[in-house]
Amino acid sequence: MRFDGREKNALREIEVTPDYLMHPEGSVLIASGNTKVICSASVETKVPPFMRGEGRGWISAEYSMLPRATNTRNIRESSKGKVTGRTMEIQRLIGRALRAVVDLDALGERTIWLDCDVIQADGGTRTASITGAFIAMVMAIAKLDEEVPFTKFPVKDFLAATSVGVLEEGGTVLDLNYVEDSAAQVDMNIIMTGSGAFVELQGTGEEATFSETELAELIALGKKGISELIEIQKETLGDKITARIKGE
Amino acid sequence: MRFDGREKNALREIEVTPDYLMHPEGSVLIASGNTKVICSASVETKVPPFMRGEGRGWISAEYSMLPRATNTRNIRESSKGKVTGRTMEIQRLIGRALRAVVDLDALGERTIWLDCDVIQADGGTRTASITGAFIAMVMAIAKLDEEVPFTKFPVKDFLAATSVGVLEEGGTVLDLNYVEDSAAQVDMNIIMTGSGAFVELQGTGEEATFSETELAELIALGKKGISELIEIQKETLGDKITARIKGE
Amino acid sequence: MRFDGREKNALREIEVTPDYLMHPEGSVLIASGNTKVICSASVETKVPPFMRGEGRGWISAEYSMLPRATNTRNIRESSKGKVTGRTMEIQRLIGRALRAVVDLDALGERTIWLDCDVIQADGGTRTASITGAFIAMVMAIAKLDEEVPFTKFPVKDFLAATSVGVLEEGGTVLDLNYVEDSAAQVDMNIIMTGSGAFVELQGTGEEATFSETELAELIALGKKGISELIEIQKETLGDKITARIKGE
Amino acid sequence: MRFDGREKNALREIEVTPDYLMHPEGSVLIASGNTKVICSASVETKVPPFMRGEGRGWISAEYSMLPRATNTRNIRESSKGKVTGRTMEIQRLIGRALRAVVDLDALGERTIWLDCDVIQADGGTRTASITGAFIAMVMAIAKLDEEVPFTKFPVKDFLAATSVGVLEEGGTVLDLNYVEDSAAQVDMNIIMTGSGAFVELQGTGEEATFSETELAELIALGKKGISELIEIQKETLGDKITARIKGE
Amino acid sequence: MRFDGREKNALREIEVTPDYLMHPEGSVLIASGNTKVICSASVETKVPPFMRGEGRGWISAEYSMLPRATNTRNIRESSKGKVTGRTMEIQRLIGRALRAVVDLDALGERTIWLDCDVIQADGGTRTASITGAFIAMVMAIAKLDEEVPFTKFPVKDFLAATSVGVLEEGGTVLDLNYVEDSAAQVDMNIIMTGSGAFVELQGTGEEATFSETELAELIALGKKGISELIEIQKETLGDKITARIKGE
Amino acid sequence: MRFDGREKNALREIEVTPDYLMHPEGSVLIASGNTKVICSASVETKVPPFMRGEGRGWISAEYSMLPRATNTRNIRESSKGKVTGRTMEIQRLIGRALRAVVDLDALGERTIWLDCDVIQADGGTRTASITGAFIAMVMAIAKLDEEVPFTKFPVKDFLAATSVGVLEEGGTVLDLNYVEDSAAQVDMNIIMTGSGAFVELQGTGEEATFSETELAELIALGKKGISELIEIQKETLGDKITARIKGE
Repeated sequence: MRFDGREKNALREIEVTPDYLMHPEGSVLIASGNTKVICSASVETKVPPFMRGEGRGWISAEYSMLPRATNTRNIRESSKGKVTGRTMEIQRLIGRALRAVVDLDALGERTIWLDCDVIQADGGTRTASITGAFIAMVMAIAKLDEEVPFTKFPVKDFLAATSVGVLEEGGTVLDLNYVEDSAAQVDMNIIMTGSGAFVELQGTGEEATFSETELAELIALGKKGISELIEIQKETLGDKITARIKGE
Repeated sequence: MRFDGREKNALREIEVTPDYLMHPEGSVLIASGNTKVICSASVETKVPPFMRGEGRGWISAEYSMLPRATNTRNIRESSKGKVTGRTMEIQRLIGRALRAVVDLDALGERTIWLDCDVIQADGGTRTASITGAFIAMVMAIAKLDEEVPFTKFPVKDFLAATSVGVLEEGGTVLDLNYVEDSAAQVDMNIIMTGSGAFVELQGTGEEATFSETELAELIALGKKGISELIEIQKETLGDKITARIKGE
Repeated sequence: MRFDGREKNALREIEVTPDYLMHPEGSVLIASGNTKVICSASVETKVPPFMRGEGRGWISAEYSMLPRATNTRNIRESSKGKVTGRTMEIQRLIGRALRAVVDLDALGERTIWLDCDVIQADGGTRTASITGAFIAMVMAIAKLDEEVPFTKFPVKDFLAATSVGVLEEGGTVLDLNYVEDSAAQVDMNIIMTGSGAFVELQGTGEEATFSETELAELIALGKKGISELIEIQKETLGDKITARIKGE
Repeated sequence: MRFDGREKNALREIEVTPDYLMHPEGSVLIASGNTKVICSASVETKVPPFMRGEGRGWISAEYSMLPRATNTRNIRESSKGKVTGRTMEIQRLIGRALRAVVDLDALGERTIWLDCDVIQADGGTRTASITGAFIAMVMAIAKLDEEVPFTKFPVKDFLAATSVGVLEEGGTVLDLNYVEDSAAQVDMNIIMTGSGAFVELQGTGEEATFSETELAELIALGKKGISELIEIQKETLGDKITARIKGE
Repeated sequence: MRFDGREKNALREIEVTPDYLMHPEGSVLIASGNTKVICSASVETKVPPFMRGEGRGWISAEYSMLPRATNTRNIRESSKGKVTGRTMEIQRLIGRALRAVVDLDALGERTIWLDCDVIQADGGTRTASITGAFIAMVMAIAKLDEEVPFTKFPVKDFLAATSVGVLEEGGTVLDLNYVEDSAAQVDMNIIMTGSGAFVELQGTGEEATFSETELAELIALGKKGISELIEIQKETLGDKITARIKGE
Repeated sequence: MRFDGREKNALREIEVTPDYLMHPEGSVLIASGNTKVICSASVETKVPPFMRGEGRGWISAEYSMLPRATNTRNIRESSKGKVTGRTMEIQRLIGRALRAVVDLDALGERTIWLDCDVIQADGGTRTASITGAFIAMVMAIAKLDEEVPFTKFPVKDFLAATSVGVLEEGGTVLDLNYVEDSAAQVDMNIIMTGSGAFVELQGTGEEATFSETELAELIALGKKGISELIEIQKETLGDKITARIKGE
């Protein structure tokens, strides 16, 4: 049994509020336990300079935390005048992960901006951002699809992310909250599709290492968590959009 | 009658959710119609370098908008690497306004940071920020007061802000939403205390000017709006804290 | 009687040196007591990107102080690598104020840059900058008018600015110098046109508040000061240009 | 057979020139095929502010490329005025990886800076940097050890890194050069210790995904490559230092 | 005869207005023909971090131009967010030149900041800055000397600067104005002391080269100009200060 | 006899490795004693905005040091977020010097970027950079010449640079290493062409001055050193390219 009463292989409670904001083409508030992230999707009818005229789309993500999303207040990146390495890593990861399940040719020459703003943090903000941003992105694309149906729906598969880790006492666990994450010897983020393929696997020993046996356990836990998250995504998006993604 | 059915002298509906976030010492989500701002207050037990050792406190505010708080997406200030002039003006205004009703000597050598993050914008974000930040700040100070009661409660009076303006068709109005604000010839922000004194008055003609008669009308509207906002602040904070502010 | 022997309602001595620099299309050195500002107007035959092709002009202002314009040396903003919030506020104010009396359509697709460089500061630098920049701007526009007369002269009215304030001892006063400004409880900048309309009103309590009675006194003082400043502007610009502004 | 004649499970030729520079406490030029990186280790007798007084050491890494290390010239990050997200990711990775095999308590209150400067790039610059930086770091620590022997030698194990990937035609391969890396569907960096434990595993689908079977193949290839790299590290460092690391 | 009627070996008219500003410890407005520079000297009772506790002083210079000092408006360096290479070169040159004639030990642990702000530019702004900054610096040091006389006066010799150049038509000339400077094939700045020693010699061919004969002519012209400038410095500073510099 | 056994008028040993890197159009590793610089030349088929459409080319140089090229580690300019004044001065100098011997019209609308990266520093890095960059530049131009022969070869003459100085004990010397450079009273960089004309002369007293006699000695030493360096350049480039430069 864990600190917060969960089993080793249990996710925290997930709550998704779709259409959370009035302006964006797609938006959700996703809560994973006490971690809360506003994910919004904005459609822009142009692409970055290096892609112009190729007829392909682009998915770009940005990630930020409110200064007091955390236990002690952080200085704003806008005040510092630069984005930290951690933020860059996370927003590059979110964008890359989403692009793995999007047919950029089918999307056409558009950029979809995903803004993931953490309003409350309790561990797992990057994985919650990916899981939530996927929903917001699909909502925005479904809106385009309603206006002028895509010949081929640009989203090829579902996509969700979770974290797994190795605790000094307690072995491998699913979905670490902040207290567990701080104490973990090994921390791994897993991003998978609805059909069970890996999109990204990032395992890191924090002044520690991990064995092949531990790797196998971590992957098994991650698969379980992700399949539950994808069920929630399907419920939120509804049957019609789910069918479009499945190409039915 | 206005665009959204309000009378000239009517505020939009105000909704205040106290204790909106788990980490800050004080926090609210304030909604003024469709404008929604998360205001959080963080207590830091030190002051800026130029004030150290004087035994006085400081109130500092920061203001930001989520990229898609607005109708079209704005580039993040952290990505641009600098804070815009508009943001600087607003956060200086919020801090200055709050300091007008705080006895910095009574507060002692502490800084209270007010973070005002606009998650949805429909006009009046700076005035909603001030009205909400006042509540968050008082909540944080009341928490300190509960731990070790202040000899003199550091908040001297209530404080709220609203906007008034002159529309080309329709004359002077209270609490402009985005559509009205964009069309207004004159835009004025009024910040007043619970006892009806001015803290700040900022009236601006947008490629236009205004007369003394219009000025008098604008001030009358502002006073009405602010007294209503202060009633809401009193309800939110409760009788006990209200009595502390009144020095009863 | 005040610190420097002036009556409550007296401006400091104003001295305007037109054509102070050889290169700009218009320039003045304006001295208001010991406050000295070089104001220059530069005509550029293009407008900011967001306005291109609309046939309208733009007025843009920049403000700066020499490092030793003040009693103790300030670090240059170019060395700091960024413009302070105070500078941004002031230059936005100068530009906005001047635009209130310019017919941007009549000006045509041109930008007039107003550079206000304070070489010596003794309070009231932003209001002296506005009063001086107005003259420099009109000189530059009059030069264009001489080359190819405007169908409609783009300057619609005179414009000047002054400060008023409430001193702890001595009540309301006109045109605060540095010593008074530092001690003032309330500080208000008033910008008005030649026909007596308000362009901008910015009153601020410095950890203090002000009443409606004080507001009325401050406005009366401001009106008196501005009418005197506008007389000086007329003398400096001469009858011919004054007539062009009045549309005679 | 691959593009450059290698077997699927073959590393490129590795060449290590120890003591490449005269000033640093440790340095190597490491060549992995045409990829060439200068790795230098600098010992500083202080640690970052957040660690002072704890008696523990720190390992910090920086990574850069000469502008013309690549096929087309890149703009210098110093000219751009900021470090790119890619560079930040890489230098955070190098530092984190090295710290996994260093006993920071045994090191004492010192920082070792590892500078990895790529002078010629042909794929695999980050993994060559880690493999080379490990040698430079050990050389610098061995130098400290000669002056005043450590009670416990601070390096706990060997550490090397390599890349593996999935090619569209050709399946899984070890040690991708630039041409292969550009075409790979999946790219994985593996960092392991001399005793065969994982330190970091970063697998990424580039607009693609990968299966568990592919993951197993990639890991097997990586293990083979890393054990060869560690043999080269041992030869370069010599028996005496190898013994110190093994705690013999 | 030159463009402006001068002989080849003639300086432009020099005008020096001492005590030009009220706040700095020393200040002049120096005009060399149409080039006008405000030079101010500020005394700070501390030195840069790397010199603390050594009992020696420091001389530091900054240089800037008003945006419209030149024929076409320049963007402010504060707006660009960085100082240009040209500005850095010039301010390093001014500081280095002045330090050559100051006994930093005699000055004691103080920094003298020289601010050279060009309000109007017509060629030779850096040399006019040096010649003017020398006077401002001596004025500030003389003021310290009056308060508490230095055992040894910290200024060891006079110092002035001028430019010389080679014109395509007209050969070598002294003190180039902007038109000449733009057309010159070779441009040389010479900085010398009152006793005729070189402090700095910077000769540059602009897509051209120069011979030893030309070098000799340029140096002869420079010596003549500098001796005239030093006479003007002596007159401005007066006999008493001149005697202090000469150590009489 | 000097510190390192050289005569007063002796250069350090020069070693030039041509084609040091695989990607650039021209590259050398130049070693002058322990000072080692990688110079690479990159051809870009466009010019800076201010030159477009004129049919002329441009030569642009950048200079940097590895953090541990020096005895103590320097912070990277990319980490600082800005290029230092020293770096700017040096790269402007390198570019300007090379342009003096290039016929930019003959080059056509191309930019040649010279990157000078110091991997080990022991004094004279800027002069070694110029001497080496000249070779790399000529190699790149010769490559263009091979593809499509230039009507007029764009390099008009050879170009090399060296330093000379005045030591407190030992008088004037050629080619200062780091120890000598630190102790020198006067430091002069001389850049000359193959036909013995000056391109740049920069002599600086470091809190010291120099006489005309010393100037003459310094120039004589510089001429000797440069003629030796140009012999080495000719050997490296070979007879064919040497003949092209001589216009034979």
